[in-house]
Amino acid sequence: MIIDAQKLIEQGKMARQAARILASANTIQKNNALIKMAECLEKSAAEIIAANRLDLEAGREMGLTSSLLERLTLDEGRIAGMAEGLREISALPDPVGEVLEINRRPNGLEVGRIRTPMGVIGIIYESRPNVTADAAGLCLKSGNAILLRGGEEALHSNRVIARIIAEAAVSSGLPAGAIQLVDSPDRQLVIQMMQMNDYIDCLIPRGGAGLKKTVMANASVPYIMTGMGNCHVYIDEFADFNKARPIVINAKVQRPSVCNAIENLLVHQAVARDFLPLIAEELREAGVEIRGCQTSKAVVPWILEASAADWAEEYLDLIIAVKVVEDVDQAIEHINKYGTGHSEAIVSENYTNVRRFMRAVDAAAVYANASTRFTDGNEFGFGAEMGISTQKLHARGPMGLRELTTTKFIVYGDGQIR
Amino acid sequence: MIIDAQKLIEQGKMARQAARILASANTIQKNNALIKMAECLEKSAAEIIAANRLDLEAGREMGLTSSLLERLTLDEGRIAGMAEGLREISALPDPVGEVLEINRRPNGLEVGRIRTPMGVIGIIYESRPNVTADAAGLCLKSGNAILLRGGEEALHSNRVIARIIAEAAVSSGLPAGAIQLVDSPDRQLVIQMMQMNDYIDCLIPRGGAGLKKTVMANASVPYIMTGMGNCHVYIDEFADFNKARPIVINAKVQRPSVCNAIENLLVHQAVARDFLPLIAEELREAGVEIRGCQTSKAVVPWILEASAADWAEEYLDLIIAVKVVEDVDQAIEHINKYGTGHSEAIVSENYTNVRRFMRAVDAAAVYANASTRFTDGNEFGFGAEMGISTQKLHARGPMGLRELTTTKFIVYGDGQIR
Repeated sequence: MIIDAQKLIEQGKMARQAARILASANTIQKNNALIKMAECLEKSAAEIIAANRLDLEAGREMGLTSSLLERLTLDEGRIAGMAEGLREISALPDPVGEVLEINRRPNGLEVGRIRTPMGVIGIIYESRPNVTADAAGLCLKSGNAILLRGGEEALHSNRVIARIIAEAAVSSGLPAGAIQLVDSPDRQLVIQMMQMNDYIDCLIPRGGAGLKKTVMANASVPYIMTGMGNCHVYIDEFADFNKARPIVINAKVQRPSVCNAIENLLVHQAVARDFLPLIAEELREAGVEIRGCQTSKAVVPWILEASAADWAEEYLDLIIAVKVVEDVDQAIEHINKYGTGHSEAIVSENYTNVRRFMRAVDAAAVYANASTRFTDGNEFGFGAEMGISTQKLHARGPMGLRELTTTKFIVYGDGQIR
Repeated sequence: MIIDAQKLIEQGKMARQAARILASANTIQKNNALIKMAECLEKSAAEIIAANRLDLEAGREMGLTSSLLERLTLDEGRIAGMAEGLREISALPDPVGEVLEINRRPNGLEVGRIRTPMGVIGIIYESRPNVTADAAGLCLKSGNAILLRGGEEALHSNRVIARIIAEAAVSSGLPAGAIQLVDSPDRQLVIQMMQMNDYIDCLIPRGGAGLKKTVMANASVPYIMTGMGNCHVYIDEFADFNKARPIVINAKVQRPSVCNAIENLLVHQAVARDFLPLIAEELREAGVEIRGCQTSKAVVPWILEASAADWAEEYLDLIIAVKVVEDVDQAIEHINKYGTGHSEAIVSENYTNVRRFMRAVDAAAVYANASTRFTDGNEFGFGAEMGISTQKLHARGPMGLRELTTTKFIVYGDGQIR
């Protein structure tokens, strides 16, 4: 059922009410709901696939690229994956109610801090319909109600998935309104979500540069910006090429469309002559287009020439920009200037250079001698993730259940006054 | 020197540069600077008082209230207090570089999290010029550059204080630009600060409802809202009146102009007849105007009648709104509806009611049997504070040094790829 502006406010009110109840739901209730949601998704696979087919048909007519269509596609396997994701979330520890500290003050007051849900979380995302189940599962486990605004191109799929998991949650005794889809292709409603301060406590935009701009220009609801990834690998003067080569190839080629893939290669001038021809050849074999600075081109003449715009661009494709730098400090400076604060790596055997890089680079994740592709909730060991924050406030890097909570101070007294 | 829009951008650039250097300053350097700043403030007391006199004269001409003039006034004692505050900050532990965790993953990667400065913090504040030194000290210790935009009414005082402490920091070897005053009474520049995403990482507005609205309407820089305090004390059916009476009086009367003072008293219907006459008399003796609901007025006829607007109002004055509620659940509902999420208290000897209140009230600090006036960095035991956050993102409650930092993931590998 397509909604309008007035209906969105009503959804916000329902979410707020549901959030109050959900906040005190116990872990067993929430886990049972997650498992029920998983079962219902699996049972309804045929219905989901039928809805997904409508999205795919419309997508083909609209001329979506094959990679977008691929992301949009659901089959038995992917639905089983969504269900498995929900079961994994049910197995993760419940962050709500964790007491972070409790100290007795000289006057006898006991001052503590306890983890609580945020309340209502709004998520704005694109093509992949599995995000609907993942995000709802994470929010539910962390005691938050969720308003889901998926991409227009996945509306049929999201509608069915959201209905199935919302009904499953209600049938497990959780409040109606805890999981709701913003069921409309109208982009004005997205703007409206960004300004629903009374009903949304935290907004999580997951998308590209366009969404980021819209959020920055319009949001009054506090938000956590995610997934902007203009990432670099810096090959130091003291790099071990046997580590450097696989790291560059992996970080660029293994999955170029994701935010933790690299877009840039920085090479110390002292090793440019030895390293660049090797890596350029490997990148070419992997089908990567190389755009180099003047110095890189002097070493490997067949590569393309980079323009000034290349240093800031997030290709998300088999393209890489290459720049020769004077030293580790110039690499750090370049990264802090052009990077989006996502994932940055140095390859070096030199203690001091590694230490300097790790300290001075201003990003969510900084690597020594490993691929940037590891920036991921699962890889870091805290299970599923809601996105990768590239901002400094609240959460930075992969956001798991803990990052979907806030804290409150609890103070126990015996009549103390000031 | 009064600045303009262009100059503000230059200040932002300088702050950004300074922040990069300050981020790797070690604790000894920062502590030395703080002590130097304290000394220089004390040595320049006469100059500060002379500048302050200009503000006070202008304030009197503008017709500022006596309480505002009082807040604005600096004397030898208050300047010594500012210096002492800086020395106390120098004695606090440095949050920067704290490793929060480090875990080895199955593939041998070591994934950790380290505390780092935010970068550049912008603070927008009002009358009290001592905030200039406090805020600068906290930011410096946490490795952040700061742009200070104080109230127009304190411009002369702030100009001198900022210059003295900035020079002291530079003379201790810290970068120029680490402490800068936005030296202009032009409110357009405040709006501009709210949109300087390239140069300010976090904005901290400290002020009233008007500032809050302006920030919500204009800010694209991530911000932490502070100090909105529509606080309540709820007197339960099972309250010990010997605790309840001093708590209500303390929370309302001890310092009515601050955000952790209460504005509302909620009383369980079962004890309204016994409690209200007692507390009304005490409040009257303390000079407090009482505005009650119908039921309260039926018990204590001489109090004024509350209007619907009273429940949402932050008086910051010797006025209190009183409402009789049916039970603890209605109290919680009222607080969650009208409160600003600052500090809320229950007075009760009943285990279940206390537990329910502590859990269900959605606020930065929730109290059992103690005055809300304790919501304060010093009282909670973490030294000076930058403000009291009433939002859920990033920091909630009193913000100390830790809350002025962010974290980054550090990942150490030996060539790992995915």
